[in-house]
Amino acid sequence: METVLASPNREVVIGPDRPFVIVGERINPTGRRAFAERISGGDLEPVREEALAQVRAGAPVLDVNAGIPGADEVDLLVRMVKLVAETVDVPLCIDSSTDAALEAALAVYEGKALVNSVTGEEDKLERILPLVKRHGAAVIGMANDERGPLPDPAERLAVARKIVQRAADHGIPAEDVLIDPLAMTVGADPDAGRVVLETMRLVREELGVNLICGASNVSFGMPGRAELTATFVAMGRMVGLTSAIANPLSREMRMATLGSDVLLGIDRYAATWLRTLRAEQAAGAEG
Amino acid sequence: METVLASPNREVVIGPDRPFVIVGERINPTGRRAFAERISGGDLEPVREEALAQVRAGAPVLDVNAGIPGADEVDLLVRMVKLVAETVDVPLCIDSSTDAALEAALAVYEGKALVNSVTGEEDKLERILPLVKRHGAAVIGMANDERGPLPDPAERLAVARKIVQRAADHGIPAEDVLIDPLAMTVGADPDAGRVVLETMRLVREELGVNLICGASNVSFGMPGRAELTATFVAMGRMVGLTSAIANPLSREMRMATLGSDVLLGIDRYAATWLRTLRAEQAAGAEG
Repeated sequence: METVLASPNREVVIGPDRPFVIVGERINPTGRRAFAERISGGDLEPVREEALAQVRAGAPVLDVNAGIPGADEVDLLVRMVKLVAETVDVPLCIDSSTDAALEAALAVYEGKALVNSVTGEEDKLERILPLVKRHGAAVIGMANDERGPLPDPAERLAVARKIVQRAADHGIPAEDVLIDPLAMTVGADPDAGRVVLETMRLVREELGVNLICGASNVSFGMPGRAELTATFVAMGRMVGLTSAIANPLSREMRMATLGSDVLLGIDRYAATWLRTLRAEQAAGAEG
Repeated sequence: METVLASPNREVVIGPDRPFVIVGERINPTGRRAFAERISGGDLEPVREEALAQVRAGAPVLDVNAGIPGADEVDLLVRMVKLVAETVDVPLCIDSSTDAALEAALAVYEGKALVNSVTGEEDKLERILPLVKRHGAAVIGMANDERGPLPDPAERLAVARKIVQRAADHGIPAEDVLIDPLAMTVGADPDAGRVVLETMRLVREELGVNLICGASNVSFGMPGRAELTATFVAMGRMVGLTSAIANPLSREMRMATLGSDVLLGIDRYAATWLRTLRAEQAAGAEG
């Protein structure tokens, strides 16, 4: 199954036989005080810089999040989405827990966006899915609901199944639903990795939809974070993970995703791998 | 299924719920001219050094190969095995294509060794399996035969099945057979990665035995070799790879294998991961 996202001039296809898609995670003020202060003060230059840096590092899609406590998120998200769309020509993942902000951002975005996100909660489904349909977007369905994070992969699968069905009821085809199996930190729960990987496997086997996850969550608070996250993505890929919201500036992440493209025979004759390593060497020789 | 190897005083267990086992690959003269010249000249100090360095880096098992064209391999392999066994207390993987050398080395080794290797070729099976049985060893069964490398994972599975059956006929239980699905370089064949990963999946699903492979082969001749090999091992782990003959001195390899132990819930509370990263930091602070 393939999911097509689009900016005004460019399409990105997510699917098991396609290069792994990193959705650049860095346009997000959560946990980044200096970034949050500048953008809530009206200076969007850091947003422009993060957009350019991530696309330069190879991210084919960018997440845009404007969640700053106390800020006017509707206005800020709209301005950020407009700026990013003017700066780089890649599809956007519009990331908000506020319906009004999602709605306003989708209204100004001229492409096929990815909406981040809906859960299995009834009221969320009934509010977000019509909005996704109206704007012809794709949507991330988080495999949790009002019960909070579910410890059993089969329960997460059940939530994912419900989201895909509800999306269909609203006229959104399964290829426009990406399931997020919920990566949580192994620092708090030693079974967090096993559970999210097993959820991927179940979702791929039963629903066959594309999978995405906030990969960096898995290593939150851990030393060797970049290495652990990259290893997680390489493993996830074998059980259906086709994209991740992650840091494209992490060399470990780029090597894991580009390397897995080579090892799955998607990057034929390692063309992208070789080009990337040559560019690295050239940059190293210059620097 | 679990495979137990043993040195005189230490057991190592290979299995899907156990920490990934790196079999240190570096005591091998192939392609290493200076190493080959010294040991064929009678100076085994490089063997001792490689044994110490690999065990210090965390390798729980070491491969020992004495294949130097023109050298007396029987004598050399016996001396190398004795020296390594005196130097480090880890089980050994005895690696030779010469029956007499395997036989002589197994005769002097006081532990339960891993024999590297037998193929599906009739004459090989009839010569190697009795030797494995006689010495109470475990054996690596390569998923190829007189036809050479097989392009189809189902054909490789058929060879693996035959080896496991023949081993049983010789009184060697399936837990003492590790199948090698044959990693070959993606530099020569863009499908090499896909085929070996798919072979792993088939062997695990049908035979349920442990899997091992010469992981570094997959990236032979490629730039970014350490990164590509480590990514391959992380991916392989999700489809049944439980051990690899690999370079334990590669930080990428250690991070991928220890990281996957954390992510599969085997390294509970990331105890080994944390200890390793702290030791790295301490060494960095010293150096």
